[in-house]
Amino acid sequence: MGFTSKIKTIEWTDNISRMIDQTILPHEFKTVDIKTCEEMFNAIKNMIVRGAPAIGIAGAHGISLAALELAKITSNKDEFIQLLKNKAEYLKSARPTAVNLMWAIDKQIEIAESTNSNIQTIVELIVKNGKKMELEDIEINKKLGDYGAEIIPKSATILTHCNAGALATVGYGTALGVIRSAYAKDHSIKVFADETRPRQQGARLTTFELTADGIDTTLITDGMCSYFMKKGMIDVVVVGADRIAANGDTANKIGTYTVAIAAKYHNVPFYIAAPLSTIDTNIKSGDEIIIEERDHNEVTTINGERVCADNVNIINPGFDVTPNELISGIITEAGILKPPYNVSIKNAFSTK
Amino acid sequence: MGFTSKIKTIEWTDNISRMIDQTILPHEFKTVDIKTCEEMFNAIKNMIVRGAPAIGIAGAHGISLAALELAKITSNKDEFIQLLKNKAEYLKSARPTAVNLMWAIDKQIEIAESTNSNIQTIVELIVKNGKKMELEDIEINKKLGDYGAEIIPKSATILTHCNAGALATVGYGTALGVIRSAYAKDHSIKVFADETRPRQQGARLTTFELTADGIDTTLITDGMCSYFMKKGMIDVVVVGADRIAANGDTANKIGTYTVAIAAKYHNVPFYIAAPLSTIDTNIKSGDEIIIEERDHNEVTTINGERVCADNVNIINPGFDVTPNELISGIITEAGILKPPYNVSIKNAFSTK
Repeated sequence: MGFTSKIKTIEWTDNISRMIDQTILPHEFKTVDIKTCEEMFNAIKNMIVRGAPAIGIAGAHGISLAALELAKITSNKDEFIQLLKNKAEYLKSARPTAVNLMWAIDKQIEIAESTNSNIQTIVELIVKNGKKMELEDIEINKKLGDYGAEIIPKSATILTHCNAGALATVGYGTALGVIRSAYAKDHSIKVFADETRPRQQGARLTTFELTADGIDTTLITDGMCSYFMKKGMIDVVVVGADRIAANGDTANKIGTYTVAIAAKYHNVPFYIAAPLSTIDTNIKSGDEIIIEERDHNEVTTINGERVCADNVNIINPGFDVTPNELISGIITEAGILKPPYNVSIKNAFSTK
Repeated sequence: MGFTSKIKTIEWTDNISRMIDQTILPHEFKTVDIKTCEEMFNAIKNMIVRGAPAIGIAGAHGISLAALELAKITSNKDEFIQLLKNKAEYLKSARPTAVNLMWAIDKQIEIAESTNSNIQTIVELIVKNGKKMELEDIEINKKLGDYGAEIIPKSATILTHCNAGALATVGYGTALGVIRSAYAKDHSIKVFADETRPRQQGARLTTFELTADGIDTTLITDGMCSYFMKKGMIDVVVVGADRIAANGDTANKIGTYTVAIAAKYHNVPFYIAAPLSTIDTNIKSGDEIIIEERDHNEVTTINGERVCADNVNIINPGFDVTPNELISGIITEAGILKPPYNVSIKNAFSTK
């Protein structure tokens, strides 16, 4: 596909993590080289890299960078591992909601703790694993994209929210991966993209990705979804996820829950597309998911100009939780999980 | 109240219509003098004046201006009336959805057609009636505001969408009139204001009006409403209307329907606040309401900067229709109309 084949969202090369700067798209397309664990913390926090799967890989690369740094300042293995675990906690705090960050960092720390070898070998294994996770991400997305394409009706119009695309992953995308796989089979499919205030990832990133691939894309504002559903213009909703609880409750970009309620009211199927690494089997329900509160300027200021009165209060939750009862299925690399999710999720992990 | 007492949104004075320029709020507060019917057409179309009741008064003033102009170019009464009716059709075409525009213009034309007198007298009667309608608008809003205040629970948090405030009327407001009346009785009430993309009337106008009156106001993006409803932070929704059908189906600013569905899902009462002049008893249901399609730049461009890819399609409906089944009541100057609306609306007009 056009867009995905050009460049990867995040790529480990010559001991640096190179990523597309997503804060300046669609106006400018450039990459940033992340050379230290601290730079990675800031890149995640400031959303130079964003999207749960991409943040996961960024976390893995961040530990690779930390390992390379720490090997220079200590030759005591116990101290090295303790310092690396400190860096892991630091990196995890960059964004609290997307579980892929915790998952990928924990995978790297497991290698450090389970390897009975010297620091140099541990560093090599961590760096190698960070690269491997990066490559696996694209394969996982293609797999889940192909599963997901099966539920897209012929000539369907698909609504998506935020950006769960190549830019939210290493490449190909989750929700947009489903759309890419469906489009490969059926060029008559169309997409409606919610702009997704406050950060406008739908307007800035999703329209950029999909039009680059030649897919017919209509941009709408977030409040419009019900209007088009009522007119019968939306056949199915597919969105990504930042964390899925063991019962299927799903945290995703703020506004997703509103779309899910509208879909239910109009009997439009509503699907989540996410790798198994987004499922957090440690939590029973969405009530346990920590919702990130983001900078209030994201709401009050657009393109540098204040859009509201001075003395106004702001609450800016970055995510909301869609309860499992509103979700028609969860599209993963292990197939499409169906309700009851506590059963289908358990099965997906036991046969993994 | 602070804001409303300062200045009127639209005011007839010395044979001109003076209005607050709502396109530059909240950054600049200035008035514009409208001196011709054509200037009024443009002021309505470009939303220098907006909000169904205010547009109605703008239409009435527009006919006053047209009458003054036409009296100078013809002394033939039949020709005068025909030309005035042409101007009426022209003015009505400025915005198709808000029925108050049609209602107010028709009231003015009725005077011209029913007055058995010379052109000069007709002009005087039209100008006088335009001023009278302007003054009545505030009284109507205060009346409906007081009725509406009765349904606001003690210390409630009220969600509103778009701006149905003093700026959408001559003064005081409809939905915000209800909030003003409730606040006068209970200073502990709070408001959540949807920003209301694409034109951001909630961010730009509602937060400006309410904070000027000292009312505790929180600005949220349009997709967030369900998140706060689920948390139990919204007690009641009150919005305005642009046209209400005989069965209670209500056209209002795009995004209203989505809020109404979210309110239903969370069992939060959802009220419309509008004068009887917003009810169009000529249409049976919302299916007959013409939805204005607005400039695509409203969606693609914010503060002069493009926010999406180049090759994206846009559909920009200015309004949506909330079906009567989602509406808990319609707050009017004749009291609060309850379902079944075809009965309560008929009764409100027969006892008018």
